[in-house]
Amino acid sequence: MVSEESIESYFRNLQDEICRGLEKADGKGKFEEDLWDRPEGGGGRTRIIADGNVIEKGGVNFSAVHGPCPDFLKKEAGISESENATFYATGVSLVIHPVNPMVPIIHMNVRYLKAANLEWFGGGIDLTPHYIFDEDAKFFHQNIKKVCDKHSPSYYPEFKKWADDYFFILHRNETRGIGGIFFDRLSAKDSISIEDRFQFVQSVGNNFLPIYLPLIEKNKNKTFTEANRQWQLLRRGRYAEFNLVYDRGTKFGLLTNGRTESILMSLPPIACWEYANQPAKGSLEEKTLQLLKKGINWAE
Amino acid sequence: MVSEESIESYFRNLQDEICRGLEKADGKGKFEEDLWDRPEGGGGRTRIIADGNVIEKGGVNFSAVHGPCPDFLKKEAGISESENATFYATGVSLVIHPVNPMVPIIHMNVRYLKAANLEWFGGGIDLTPHYIFDEDAKFFHQNIKKVCDKHSPSYYPEFKKWADDYFFILHRNETRGIGGIFFDRLSAKDSISIEDRFQFVQSVGNNFLPIYLPLIEKNKNKTFTEANRQWQLLRRGRYAEFNLVYDRGTKFGLLTNGRTESILMSLPPIACWEYANQPAKGSLEEKTLQLLKKGINWAE
Repeated sequence: MVSEESIESYFRNLQDEICRGLEKADGKGKFEEDLWDRPEGGGGRTRIIADGNVIEKGGVNFSAVHGPCPDFLKKEAGISESENATFYATGVSLVIHPVNPMVPIIHMNVRYLKAANLEWFGGGIDLTPHYIFDEDAKFFHQNIKKVCDKHSPSYYPEFKKWADDYFFILHRNETRGIGGIFFDRLSAKDSISIEDRFQFVQSVGNNFLPIYLPLIEKNKNKTFTEANRQWQLLRRGRYAEFNLVYDRGTKFGLLTNGRTESILMSLPPIACWEYANQPAKGSLEEKTLQLLKKGINWAE
Repeated sequence: MVSEESIESYFRNLQDEICRGLEKADGKGKFEEDLWDRPEGGGGRTRIIADGNVIEKGGVNFSAVHGPCPDFLKKEAGISESENATFYATGVSLVIHPVNPMVPIIHMNVRYLKAANLEWFGGGIDLTPHYIFDEDAKFFHQNIKKVCDKHSPSYYPEFKKWADDYFFILHRNETRGIGGIFFDRLSAKDSISIEDRFQFVQSVGNNFLPIYLPLIEKNKNKTFTEANRQWQLLRRGRYAEFNLVYDRGTKFGLLTNGRTESILMSLPPIACWEYANQPAKGSLEEKTLQLLKKGINWAE
Protein backbone atom coordinates (compact mmCIF):
# COMPACT_ATOMS: atom_id res chain seq x y z
CA MET A 1 0.00 0.00 0.00
CA VAL A 2 1.09 3.52 -0.78
CA SER A 3 -0.88 6.20 1.01
CA GLU A 4 -2.45 9.07 -0.89
CA GLU A 5 -0.79 11.37 1.62
CA SER A 6 2.71 10.16 0.81
CA ILE A 7 2.15 10.46 -2.94
CA GLU A 8 0.61 13.91 -2.69
CA SER A 9 3.38 15.02 -0.38
CA TYR A 10 6.01 13.73 -2.81
CA PHE A 11 4.42 15.64 -5.70
CA ARG A 12 4.19 18.86 -3.65
CA ASN A 13 7.85 18.61 -2.73
CA LEU A 14 8.79 17.78 -6.30
CA GLN A 15 7.07 20.94 -7.52
CA ASP A 16 8.96 22.97 -4.90
CA GLU A 17 12.30 21.41 -5.76
CA ILE A 18 11.87 21.85 -9.53
CA CYS A 19 10.77 25.47 -9.16
CA ARG A 20 13.79 26.23 -6.94
CA GLY A 21 16.15 24.53 -9.40
CA LEU A 22 14.73 26.31 -12.43
CA GLU A 23 14.78 29.71 -10.73
CA LYS A 24 18.41 29.18 -9.80
CA ALA A 25 19.30 28.14 -13.35
CA ASP A 26 17.41 31.10 -14.77
CA GLY A 27 18.96 33.69 -12.47
CA LYS A 28 16.21 36.25 -13.04
CA GLY A 29 12.71 34.81 -13.55
CA LYS A 30 10.62 34.00 -10.47
CA PHE A 31 7.63 31.69 -10.30
CA GLU A 32 4.34 33.33 -9.45
CA GLU A 33 1.87 31.08 -7.67
CA ASP A 34 -1.89 30.85 -8.12
CA LEU A 35 -3.71 28.69 -5.59
CA TRP A 36 -7.04 27.42 -6.80
CA ASP A 37 -9.88 25.32 -5.47
CA ARG A 38 -11.95 22.90 -7.44
CA PRO A 39 -15.62 23.35 -6.51
CA GLU A 40 -16.16 19.57 -6.63
CA GLY A 41 -13.17 18.85 -4.37
CA GLY A 42 -9.45 19.53 -4.12
CA GLY A 43 -7.42 22.11 -5.98
CA GLY A 44 -3.94 23.02 -7.05
CA ARG A 45 -0.92 25.25 -7.12
CA THR A 46 -0.27 26.71 -10.57
CA ARG A 47 3.17 28.27 -10.84
CA ILE A 48 4.16 30.36 -13.84
CA ILE A 49 7.54 31.85 -14.69
CA ALA A 50 7.99 34.39 -17.50
CA ASP A 51 10.52 36.75 -19.05
CA GLY A 52 13.54 35.14 -17.42
CA ASN A 53 17.12 35.02 -18.65
CA VAL A 54 16.71 31.43 -19.79
CA ILE A 55 12.98 30.74 -19.61
CA GLU A 56 10.66 32.82 -21.77
CA LYS A 57 7.56 31.16 -20.32
CA GLY A 58 7.07 28.08 -18.22
CA GLY A 59 4.62 26.46 -15.88
CA VAL A 60 5.13 23.88 -13.13
CA ASN A 61 1.74 22.83 -11.82
CA PHE A 62 0.70 20.67 -8.89
CA SER A 63 -2.85 19.50 -8.32
CA ALA A 64 -4.73 17.06 -6.11
CA VAL A 65 -8.40 16.69 -6.89
CA HIS A 66 -11.13 14.32 -5.76
CA GLY A 67 -14.85 13.80 -5.96
CA PRO A 68 -17.48 11.46 -7.30
CA CYS A 69 -16.06 8.94 -9.74
CA PRO A 70 -16.77 9.92 -13.40
CA ASP A 71 -18.87 7.42 -15.33
CA PHE A 72 -16.11 6.49 -17.78
CA LEU A 73 -13.94 5.36 -14.86
CA LYS A 74 -16.80 3.40 -13.29
CA LYS A 75 -17.22 1.65 -16.59
CA GLU A 76 -13.53 0.85 -16.68
CA ALA A 77 -13.64 -0.39 -13.08
CA GLY A 78 -16.50 -2.67 -14.02
CA ILE A 79 -19.03 -1.15 -11.65
CA SER A 80 -22.44 0.20 -12.56
CA GLU A 81 -23.08 3.92 -12.96
CA SER A 82 -25.57 3.85 -10.10
CA GLU A 83 -22.98 2.60 -7.63
CA ASN A 84 -21.32 5.17 -5.37
CA ALA A 85 -17.59 5.56 -5.88
CA THR A 86 -15.00 8.31 -5.57
CA PHE A 87 -11.86 9.25 -7.45
CA TYR A 88 -8.65 10.91 -6.37
CA ALA A 89 -5.97 12.23 -8.73
CA THR A 90 -2.75 14.07 -8.04
CA GLY A 91 0.30 15.00 -10.05
CA VAL A 92 2.83 17.48 -11.33
CA SER A 93 2.88 18.77 -14.90
CA LEU A 94 5.40 21.13 -16.44
CA VAL A 95 6.34 22.74 -19.74
CA ILE A 96 9.30 25.08 -20.26
CA HIS A 97 9.63 27.35 -23.31
CA PRO A 98 13.19 28.73 -23.31
CA VAL A 99 14.36 32.09 -24.68
CA ASN A 100 17.28 30.72 -26.69
CA PRO A 101 16.24 28.60 -29.71
CA MET A 102 19.24 26.35 -29.01
CA VAL A 103 17.77 25.30 -25.65
CA PRO A 104 15.08 22.61 -26.06
CA ILE A 105 11.48 22.83 -24.86
CA ILE A 106 10.82 20.22 -22.17
CA HIS A 107 7.66 18.63 -20.82
CA MET A 108 7.21 16.31 -17.86
CA ASN A 109 4.18 14.89 -16.17
CA VAL A 110 3.91 12.49 -13.24
CA ARG A 111 0.52 11.53 -11.90
CA TYR A 112 -1.44 9.12 -9.74
CA LEU A 113 -5.08 8.10 -10.00
CA LYS A 114 -7.31 6.09 -7.71
CA ALA A 115 -10.93 5.44 -8.66
CA ALA A 116 -13.11 2.61 -7.31
CA ASN A 117 -10.87 -0.46 -7.54
CA LEU A 118 -8.50 1.17 -10.05
CA GLU A 119 -5.10 2.48 -8.98
CA TRP A 120 -2.34 3.57 -11.31
CA PHE A 121 0.55 5.90 -12.07
CA GLY A 122 1.16 7.64 -15.37
CA GLY A 123 3.32 10.30 -16.92
CA GLY A 124 6.46 10.79 -18.91
CA ILE A 125 9.15 13.20 -19.93
CA ASP A 126 9.95 14.32 -23.46
CA LEU A 127 12.15 16.85 -25.22
CA THR A 128 11.29 19.16 -28.12
CA PRO A 129 14.46 20.80 -29.45
CA HIS A 130 13.96 23.61 -31.97
CA TYR A 131 17.31 22.44 -33.30
CA ILE A 132 18.29 18.81 -32.77
CA PHE A 133 21.90 18.34 -31.63
CA ASP A 134 22.87 14.68 -31.66
CA GLU A 135 24.86 14.83 -28.45
CA ASP A 136 21.99 16.48 -26.56
CA ALA A 137 19.49 13.96 -27.89
CA LYS A 138 21.78 11.12 -26.84
CA PHE A 139 22.43 12.65 -23.42
CA PHE A 140 18.68 12.97 -22.88
CA HIS A 141 17.73 9.47 -23.96
CA GLN A 142 20.70 7.75 -22.34
CA ASN A 143 19.86 9.33 -19.01
CA ILE A 144 16.18 8.52 -19.30
CA LYS A 145 17.13 4.94 -20.13
CA LYS A 146 19.37 4.78 -17.04
CA VAL A 147 16.45 5.92 -14.90
CA CYS A 148 14.19 3.29 -16.45
CA ASP A 149 16.73 0.46 -16.33
CA LYS A 150 17.10 0.80 -12.56
CA HIS A 151 13.48 -0.31 -12.30
CA SER A 152 12.90 -2.69 -15.19
CA PRO A 153 14.75 -3.51 -18.42
CA SER A 154 11.45 -3.45 -20.28
CA TYR A 155 10.51 0.09 -19.24
CA TYR A 156 12.72 2.12 -21.57
CA PRO A 157 12.00 0.25 -24.83
CA GLU A 158 8.29 0.07 -24.05
CA PHE A 159 7.82 3.64 -22.84
CA LYS A 160 10.12 5.12 -25.49
CA LYS A 161 7.97 3.58 -28.22
CA TRP A 162 4.86 4.81 -26.43
CA ALA A 163 6.27 8.37 -26.51
CA ASP A 164 7.14 8.07 -30.21
CA ASP A 165 3.58 7.01 -30.96
CA TYR A 166 1.95 9.50 -28.63
CA PHE A 167 3.88 12.68 -29.47
CA PHE A 168 3.12 12.41 -33.16
CA ILE A 169 1.57 15.18 -35.26
CA LEU A 170 -0.37 13.12 -37.75
CA HIS A 171 -1.28 15.98 -40.09
CA ARG A 172 2.40 17.02 -40.33
CA ASN A 173 3.69 13.47 -40.43
CA GLU A 174 6.31 14.38 -37.86
CA THR A 175 6.98 13.76 -34.17
CA ARG A 176 6.62 16.73 -31.83
CA GLY A 177 10.27 16.46 -30.84
CA ILE A 178 12.73 13.67 -30.08
CA GLY A 179 10.33 11.96 -27.68
CA GLY A 180 11.45 10.43 -24.43
CA ILE A 181 9.17 8.21 -22.39
CA PHE A 182 5.40 8.08 -21.98
CA PHE A 183 3.51 5.65 -19.76
CA ASP A 184 0.00 5.33 -18.39
CA ARG A 185 -2.06 3.05 -16.21
CA LEU A 186 0.91 1.48 -14.47
CA SER A 187 -0.88 -0.58 -11.86
CA ALA A 188 0.31 -3.39 -9.59
CA LYS A 189 0.87 -6.37 -11.86
CA ASP A 190 2.49 -9.78 -11.41
CA SER A 191 5.56 -9.21 -9.24
CA ILE A 192 5.44 -5.40 -9.62
CA SER A 193 3.73 -3.72 -6.68
CA ILE A 194 2.13 -0.28 -6.70
CA GLU A 195 5.05 0.73 -4.42
CA ASP A 196 7.44 -0.27 -7.21
CA ARG A 197 5.50 1.91 -9.64
CA PHE A 198 5.69 4.80 -7.20
CA GLN A 199 9.45 4.30 -6.87
CA PHE A 200 9.78 4.50 -10.64
CA VAL A 201 7.69 7.65 -10.92
CA GLN A 202 9.82 9.23 -8.16
CA SER A 203 12.97 8.35 -10.11
CA VAL A 204 11.55 10.10 -13.16
CA GLY A 205 10.58 13.17 -11.15
CA ASN A 206 13.87 13.36 -9.26
CA ASN A 207 15.85 13.18 -12.47
CA PHE A 208 14.15 16.10 -14.14
CA LEU A 209 16.63 18.71 -12.94
CA PRO A 210 19.77 16.54 -13.39
CA ILE A 211 18.68 15.92 -16.99
CA TYR A 212 17.37 19.34 -18.03
CA LEU A 213 19.77 21.70 -16.27
CA PRO A 214 22.84 20.47 -18.20
CA LEU A 215 20.92 21.03 -21.46
CA ILE A 216 20.22 24.59 -20.33
CA GLU A 217 23.81 25.23 -19.24
CA LYS A 218 25.29 23.85 -22.42
CA ASN A 219 23.11 25.87 -24.78
CA LYS A 220 21.84 28.99 -23.03
CA ASN A 221 24.72 31.24 -24.09
CA LYS A 222 24.89 30.12 -27.71
CA THR A 223 24.47 33.02 -30.11
CA PHE A 224 21.49 32.94 -32.42
CA THR A 225 20.17 34.94 -35.36
CA GLU A 226 16.80 36.40 -36.24
CA ALA A 227 16.34 33.43 -38.58
CA ASN A 228 16.95 31.02 -35.66
CA ARG A 229 14.35 32.91 -33.65
CA GLN A 230 11.86 32.73 -36.51
CA TRP A 231 12.40 28.96 -36.75
CA GLN A 232 11.85 28.66 -33.00
CA LEU A 233 8.49 30.45 -33.38
CA LEU A 234 7.48 28.11 -36.22
CA ARG A 235 8.39 25.05 -34.11
CA ARG A 236 6.37 26.51 -31.25
CA GLY A 237 3.45 26.73 -33.67
CA ARG A 238 3.76 22.97 -34.16
CA TYR A 239 3.91 22.51 -30.39
CA ALA A 240 0.62 24.41 -30.08
CA GLU A 241 -0.87 22.29 -32.87
CA PHE A 242 0.03 19.09 -31.07
CA ASN A 243 -1.30 20.26 -27.72
CA LEU A 244 -4.58 21.60 -29.08
CA VAL A 245 -5.33 18.90 -31.66
CA TYR A 246 -3.96 15.69 -30.13
CA ASP A 247 -2.89 15.93 -26.49
CA ARG A 248 -5.33 13.84 -24.48
CA GLY A 249 -4.70 15.63 -21.19
CA THR A 250 -5.37 19.02 -22.78
CA LYS A 251 -8.50 17.92 -24.62
CA PHE A 252 -9.87 16.01 -21.64
CA GLY A 253 -9.22 19.02 -19.41
CA LEU A 254 -10.78 21.54 -21.76
CA LEU A 255 -13.85 19.49 -22.53
CA THR A 256 -14.55 18.54 -18.88
CA ASN A 257 -14.49 22.03 -17.46
CA GLY A 258 -10.92 21.81 -16.14
CA ARG A 259 -9.03 24.95 -15.11
CA THR A 260 -8.32 26.40 -18.56
CA GLU A 261 -5.49 28.74 -17.57
CA SER A 262 -3.60 25.93 -15.82
CA ILE A 263 -4.09 23.52 -18.71
CA LEU A 264 -3.07 26.02 -21.38
CA MET A 265 0.10 27.15 -19.57
CA SER A 266 1.68 24.60 -21.94
CA LEU A 267 1.14 26.92 -24.92
CA PRO A 268 4.10 29.01 -26.04
CA PRO A 269 4.32 32.72 -25.16
CA ILE A 270 4.52 33.55 -28.85
CA ALA A 271 4.30 31.35 -31.95
CA CYS A 272 4.23 31.67 -35.73
CA TRP A 273 2.61 30.02 -38.70
CA GLU A 274 3.92 30.45 -42.21
CA TYR A 275 2.39 28.90 -45.31
CA ALA A 276 4.40 25.91 -46.61
CA ASN A 277 7.70 26.81 -44.93
CA GLN A 278 10.56 24.81 -46.45
CA PRO A 279 14.02 24.93 -44.84
CA ALA A 280 17.01 25.34 -47.14
CA LYS A 281 18.75 22.20 -48.35
CA GLY A 282 21.51 21.12 -45.99
CA SER A 283 20.45 23.57 -43.26
CA LEU A 284 20.25 22.75 -39.56
CA GLU A 285 16.51 23.30 -39.85
CA GLU A 286 16.24 20.66 -42.56
CA LYS A 287 18.35 18.24 -40.54
CA THR A 288 16.04 18.78 -37.57
CA LEU A 289 12.94 18.05 -39.66
CA GLN A 290 14.53 14.85 -40.93
CA LEU A 291 15.03 13.67 -37.35
CA LEU A 292 11.43 14.29 -36.32
CA LYS A 293 10.40 10.70 -36.86
CA LYS A 294 9.60 7.62 -34.84
CA GLY A 295 11.98 4.83 -34.00
CA ILE A 296 15.34 6.61 -33.77
CA ASN A 297 17.47 4.82 -31.21
CA TRP A 298 19.12 7.77 -29.43
CA ALA A 299 20.14 5.80 -26.34
CA GLU A 300 22.64 3.52 -28.07
CA MET B 1 -31.16 21.21 -61.39
CA VAL B 2 -27.95 23.11 -60.89
CA SER B 3 -24.98 21.70 -62.74
CA GLU B 4 -21.74 20.94 -60.96
CA GLU B 5 -20.03 22.91 -63.72
CA SER B 6 -21.98 26.08 -63.04
CA ILE B 7 -21.34 25.87 -59.29
CA GLU B 8 -17.65 25.14 -59.69
CA SER B 9 -17.33 27.91 -62.21
CA TYR B 10 -19.08 30.35 -59.86
CA PHE B 11 -16.69 29.45 -57.02
CA ARG B 12 -13.63 29.82 -59.26
CA ASN B 13 -14.75 33.25 -60.36
CA LEU B 14 -15.58 34.22 -56.81
CA GLN B 15 -12.05 33.36 -55.71
CA ASP B 16 -10.66 35.47 -58.57
CA GLU B 17 -12.89 38.41 -57.78
CA ILE B 18 -12.17 38.36 -54.05
CA CYS B 19 -8.41 38.09 -54.60
CA ARG B 20 -8.50 41.04 -57.01
CA GLY B 21 -10.56 43.11 -54.58
CA LEU B 22 -8.34 42.35 -51.62
CA GLU B 23 -5.13 43.06 -53.53
CA LYS B 24 -6.53 46.40 -54.62
CA ALA B 25 -7.56 47.28 -51.07
CA ASP B 26 -4.17 46.21 -49.77
CA GLY B 27 -2.13 48.13 -52.32
CA LYS B 28 1.02 46.09 -51.76
CA GLY B 29 0.46 42.39 -50.98
CA LYS B 30 -0.02 39.97 -53.86
CA PHE B 31 -1.59 36.54 -53.74
CA GLU B 32 0.74 33.64 -54.48
CA GLU B 33 -0.97 30.61 -55.97
CA ASP B 34 -0.33 26.94 -55.29
CA LEU B 35 -2.13 24.50 -57.56
CA TRP B 36 -2.55 21.05 -56.08
CA ASP B 37 -4.00 17.74 -57.10
CA ARG B 38 -5.76 15.31 -54.84
CA PRO B 39 -4.54 11.79 -55.60
CA GLU B 40 -8.07 10.40 -55.18
CA GLY B 41 -9.58 12.98 -57.58
CA GLY B 42 -9.79 16.74 -58.06
CA GLY B 43 -7.64 19.44 -56.53
CA GLY B 44 -7.50 23.09 -55.71
CA ARG B 45 -6.02 26.54 -55.96
CA THR B 46 -4.59 27.75 -52.66
CA ARG B 47 -3.85 31.49 -52.71
CA ILE B 48 -1.89 33.11 -49.91
CA ILE B 49 -1.16 36.79 -49.36
CA ALA B 50 1.34 37.98 -46.75
CA ASP B 51 3.13 41.10 -45.48
CA GLY B 52 0.79 43.53 -47.18
CA ASN B 53 -0.09 47.08 -46.14
CA VAL B 54 -3.42 45.96 -44.73
CA ILE B 55 -3.23 42.15 -44.66
CA GLU B 56 -0.55 40.52 -42.53
CA LYS B 57 -1.54 37.04 -43.71
CA GLY B 58 -4.53 35.72 -45.54
CA GLY B 59 -5.68 32.80 -47.63
CA VAL B 60 -8.43 32.52 -50.22
CA ASN B 61 -8.77 28.89 -51.26
CA PHE B 62 -10.77 27.18 -53.96
CA SER B 63 -11.12 23.44 -54.25
CA ALA B 64 -13.19 20.91 -56.19
CA VAL B 65 -12.65 17.30 -55.18
CA HIS B 66 -14.37 14.04 -55.99
CA GLY B 67 -14.02 10.33 -55.55
CA PRO B 68 -15.64 7.31 -53.93
CA CYS B 69 -18.28 8.30 -51.39
CA PRO B 70 -16.97 8.09 -47.79
CA ASP B 71 -18.82 5.63 -45.56
CA PHE B 72 -20.22 8.27 -43.21
CA LEU B 73 -21.98 9.92 -46.16
CA LYS B 74 -23.30 6.60 -47.44
CA LYS B 75 -24.73 6.02 -43.99
CA GLU B 76 -26.35 9.43 -44.05
CA ALA B 77 -27.71 8.80 -47.54
CA GLY B 78 -29.22 5.55 -46.30
CA ILE B 79 -27.29 3.29 -48.65
CA SER B 80 -25.15 0.34 -47.66
CA GLU B 81 -21.37 0.58 -47.48
CA SER B 82 -21.03 -2.04 -50.19
CA GLU B 83 -22.98 0.04 -52.71
CA ASN B 84 -20.97 2.06 -55.21
CA ALA B 85 -21.40 5.80 -54.93
CA THR B 86 -19.34 8.91 -55.55
CA PHE B 87 -19.06 12.31 -53.92
CA TYR B 88 -18.23 15.72 -55.28
CA ALA B 89 -17.44 18.78 -53.18
CA THR B 90 -16.43 22.28 -54.16
CA GLY B 91 -16.11 25.60 -52.39
CA VAL B 92 -14.21 28.71 -51.44
CA SER B 93 -12.80 29.29 -47.99
CA LEU B 94 -11.01 32.39 -46.75
CA VAL B 95 -9.48 33.90 -43.63
CA ILE B 96 -7.85 37.35 -43.43
CA HIS B 97 -5.56 38.40 -40.56
CA PRO B 98 -5.04 42.18 -40.87
CA VAL B 99 -1.96 44.16 -39.79
CA ASN B 100 -3.84 46.83 -37.85
CA PRO B 101 -5.52 45.55 -34.64
CA MET B 102 -8.43 47.90 -35.35
CA VAL B 103 -9.29 46.00 -38.56
CA PRO B 104 -11.27 42.81 -37.82
CA ILE B 105 -10.30 39.27 -38.82
CA ILE B 106 -12.81 37.85 -41.29
CA HIS B 107 -13.71 34.33 -42.34
CA MET B 108 -16.01 33.16 -45.10
CA ASN B 109 -16.79 29.77 -46.53
CA VAL B 110 -19.21 28.76 -49.27
CA ARG B 111 -19.45 25.15 -50.34
CA TYR B 112 -21.46 22.56 -52.20
CA LEU B 113 -21.60 18.81 -51.68
CA LYS B 114 -23.15 16.03 -53.70
CA ALA B 115 -22.91 12.44 -52.51
CA ALA B 116 -25.20 9.59 -53.53
CA ASN B 117 -28.71 11.09 -53.23
CA LEU B 118 -27.53 13.93 -50.96
CA GLU B 119 -27.09 17.45 -52.29
CA TRP B 120 -26.56 20.55 -50.20
CA PHE B 121 -24.92 23.94 -49.78
CA GLY B 122 -23.19 25.15 -46.65
CA GLY B 123 -21.00 27.96 -45.41
CA GLY B 124 -21.15 31.26 -43.62
CA ILE B 125 -19.38 34.48 -42.93
CA ASP B 126 -18.27 35.75 -39.53
CA LEU B 127 -16.24 38.60 -38.08
CA THR B 128 -13.64 38.50 -35.30
CA PRO B 129 -12.70 42.03 -34.27
CA HIS B 130 -9.71 42.36 -31.93
CA TYR B 131 -11.55 45.45 -30.70
CA ILE B 132 -15.31 45.53 -31.04
CA PHE B 133 -16.68 48.84 -32.34
CA ASP B 134 -20.46 48.94 -32.10
CA GLU B 135 -20.95 50.70 -35.42
CA ASP B 136 -18.79 48.17 -37.27
CA ALA B 137 -20.59 45.24 -35.63
CA LYS B 138 -23.93 46.76 -36.59
CA PHE B 139 -22.79 47.50 -40.14
CA PHE B 140 -21.63 43.90 -40.51
CA HIS B 141 -24.76 42.25 -39.14
CA GLN B 142 -27.21 44.64 -40.80
CA ASN B 143 -25.65 43.95 -44.18
CA ILE B 144 -25.58 40.20 -43.62
CA LYS B 145 -29.23 40.38 -42.60
CA LYS B 146 -30.06 42.29 -45.78
CA VAL B 147 -28.41 39.57 -47.85
CA CYS B 148 -30.36 36.88 -46.00
CA ASP B 149 -33.70 38.70 -46.06
CA LYS B 150 -33.66 38.86 -49.85
CA HIS B 151 -33.92 35.08 -49.85
CA SER B 152 -35.96 34.17 -46.77
CA PRO B 153 -36.99 36.03 -43.60
CA SER B 154 -36.08 32.96 -41.58
CA TYR B 155 -32.46 32.79 -42.79
CA TYR B 156 -30.87 35.56 -40.74
CA PRO B 157 -32.35 34.66 -37.33
CA GLU B 158 -31.71 30.96 -37.88
CA PHE B 159 -28.18 31.23 -39.31
CA LYS B 160 -27.14 33.99 -36.90
CA LYS B 161 -27.99 31.74 -33.95
CA TRP B 162 -26.18 28.87 -35.65
CA ALA B 163 -23.04 31.05 -35.90
CA ASP B 164 -23.33 32.10 -32.23
CA ASP B 165 -23.51 28.45 -31.21
CA TYR B 166 -20.82 27.26 -33.61
CA PHE B 167 -18.14 29.92 -33.12
CA PHE B 168 -18.03 29.37 -29.38
CA ILE B 169 -14.86 28.65 -27.39
CA LEU B 170 -16.29 26.46 -24.66
CA HIS B 171 -13.17 26.40 -22.48
CA ARG B 172 -13.00 30.22 -22.51
CA ASN B 173 -16.75 30.67 -22.24
CA GLU B 174 -16.60 33.25 -25.01
CA THR B 175 -17.56 33.50 -28.67
CA ARG B 176 -14.72 33.68 -31.19
CA GLY B 177 -15.87 37.09 -32.34
CA ILE B 178 -19.20 38.78 -33.06
CA GLY B 179 -20.44 35.89 -35.19
CA GLY B 180 -22.33 36.39 -38.40
CA ILE B 181 -24.10 33.54 -40.16
CA PHE B 182 -23.38 29.83 -40.34
CA PHE B 183 -25.42 27.27 -42.28
CA ASP B 184 -25.02 23.71 -43.42
CA ARG B 185 -26.89 21.03 -45.31
CA LEU B 186 -29.17 23.45 -47.11
CA SER B 187 -30.90 21.07 -49.48
CA ALA B 188 -34.02 21.42 -51.58
CA LYS B 189 -36.92 21.44 -49.16
CA ASP B 190 -40.64 22.20 -49.48
CA SER B 191 -40.91 25.16 -51.86
CA ILE B 192 -37.17 25.93 -51.71
CA SER B 193 -35.28 24.47 -54.66
CA ILE B 194 -31.57 23.69 -54.80
CA GLU B 195 -31.40 26.59 -57.29
CA ASP B 196 -32.76 28.89 -54.60
CA ARG B 197 -30.06 27.65 -52.21
CA PHE B 198 -27.42 28.33 -54.84
CA GLN B 199 -28.81 31.85 -55.35
CA PHE B 200 -28.49 32.47 -51.63
CA VAL B 201 -24.91 31.18 -51.46
CA GLN B 202 -24.04 33.41 -54.42
CA SER B 203 -25.50 36.41 -52.60
CA VAL B 204 -23.31 35.63 -49.59
CA GLY B 205 -20.20 35.24 -51.74
CA ASN B 206 -20.89 38.35 -53.83
CA ASN B 207 -21.36 40.47 -50.74
CA PHE B 208 -18.02 39.60 -49.17
CA LEU B 209 -16.13 42.52 -50.70
CA PRO B 210 -18.93 45.10 -50.26
CA ILE B 211 -19.10 44.16 -46.58
CA TYR B 212 -15.41 43.73 -45.69
CA LEU B 213 -13.77 46.49 -47.75
CA PRO B 214 -15.57 49.33 -45.91
CA LEU B 215 -14.39 47.81 -42.59
CA ILE B 216 -10.84 47.86 -43.92
CA GLU B 217 -11.11 51.43 -45.24
CA LYS B 218 -12.62 52.77 -42.05
CA ASN B 219 -10.01 51.26 -39.73
CA LYS B 220 -6.78 50.63 -41.62
CA ASN B 221 -5.22 54.01 -40.87
CA LYS B 222 -6.14 54.16 -37.20
CA THR B 223 -3.09 54.57 -34.98
CA PHE B 224 -2.36 51.82 -32.53
CA THR B 225 0.04 51.21 -29.65
CA GLU B 226 2.30 48.30 -28.69
CA ALA B 227 -0.37 47.37 -26.14
CA ASN B 228 -2.99 47.21 -28.92
CA ARG B 229 -0.67 44.96 -30.92
CA GLN B 230 -0.12 42.69 -27.91
CA TRP B 231 -3.89 42.40 -27.44
CA GLN B 232 -4.26 41.52 -31.13
CA LEU B 233 -1.74 38.69 -30.69
CA LEU B 234 -3.62 37.36 -27.65
CA ARG B 235 -6.90 37.43 -29.58
CA ARG B 236 -5.18 35.59 -32.42
CA GLY B 237 -4.17 32.96 -29.86
CA ARG B 238 -7.87 32.46 -29.14
CA TYR B 239 -8.54 32.24 -32.87
CA ALA B 240 -5.96 29.44 -33.12
CA GLU B 241 -7.52 27.71 -30.12
CA PHE B 242 -10.94 27.73 -31.75
CA ASN B 243 -9.70 26.49 -35.09
CA LEU B 244 -7.56 23.69 -33.66
CA VAL B 245 -9.87 22.53 -30.86
CA TYR B 246 -13.39 23.03 -32.23
CA ASP B 247 -13.59 23.87 -35.92
CA ARG B 248 -15.17 20.90 -37.64
CA GLY B 249 -13.76 21.67 -41.07
CA THR B 250 -10.23 21.90 -39.70
CA LYS B 251 -10.47 18.74 -37.63
CA PHE B 252 -12.17 16.79 -40.39
CA GLY B 253 -9.52 17.93 -42.85
CA LEU B 254 -6.57 17.15 -40.59
CA LEU B 255 -7.83 13.75 -39.53
CA THR B 256 -8.77 12.61 -43.03
CA ASN B 257 -5.51 13.37 -44.72
CA GLY B 258 -6.58 16.68 -46.20
CA ARG B 259 -4.02 19.16 -47.55
CA THR B 260 -2.60 20.42 -44.24
CA GLU B 261 -1.04 23.62 -45.56
CA SER B 262 -4.29 24.71 -47.21
CA ILE B 263 -6.36 23.89 -44.14
CA LEU B 264 -4.04 25.63 -41.70
CA MET B 265 -3.75 28.83 -43.76
CA SER B 266 -6.47 29.96 -41.32
CA LEU B 267 -3.93 30.16 -38.47
CA PRO B 268 -2.50 33.59 -37.65
CA PRO B 269 1.01 34.58 -38.81
CA ILE B 270 1.97 35.22 -35.19
CA ALA B 271 0.04 34.73 -31.95
CA CYS B 272 0.58 34.98 -28.21
CA TRP B 273 -0.49 33.24 -25.04
CA GLU B 274 -0.19 34.86 -21.65
CA TYR B 275 -1.17 33.25 -18.36
CA ALA B 276 -4.46 34.61 -16.97
CA ASN B 277 -4.44 37.90 -18.88
CA GLN B 278 -6.98 40.33 -17.39
CA PRO B 279 -7.74 43.62 -19.19
CA ALA B 280 -7.91 46.77 -17.09
CA LYS B 281 -11.30 47.83 -15.77
CA GLY B 282 -13.09 50.11 -18.19
CA SER B 283 -10.62 49.44 -21.03
CA LEU B 284 -11.58 48.80 -24.64
CA GLU B 285 -10.16 45.31 -24.19
CA GLU B 286 -12.52 44.63 -21.29
CA LYS B 287 -15.47 46.01 -23.26
CA THR B 288 -14.58 43.68 -26.13
CA LEU B 289 -14.47 40.63 -23.84
CA GLN B 290 -17.88 41.55 -22.42
CA LEU B 291 -19.33 41.53 -25.94
CA LEU B 292 -17.96 38.09 -26.80
CA LYS B 293 -21.17 36.30 -25.96
CA LYS B 294 -24.08 34.70 -27.73
CA GLY B 295 -27.40 36.30 -28.49
CA ILE B 296 -26.45 39.95 -29.05
CA ASN B 297 -28.83 41.46 -31.59
CA TRP B 298 -26.43 43.59 -33.65
CA ALA B 299 -28.76 43.91 -36.64
CA GLU B 300 -31.44 45.98 -34.89
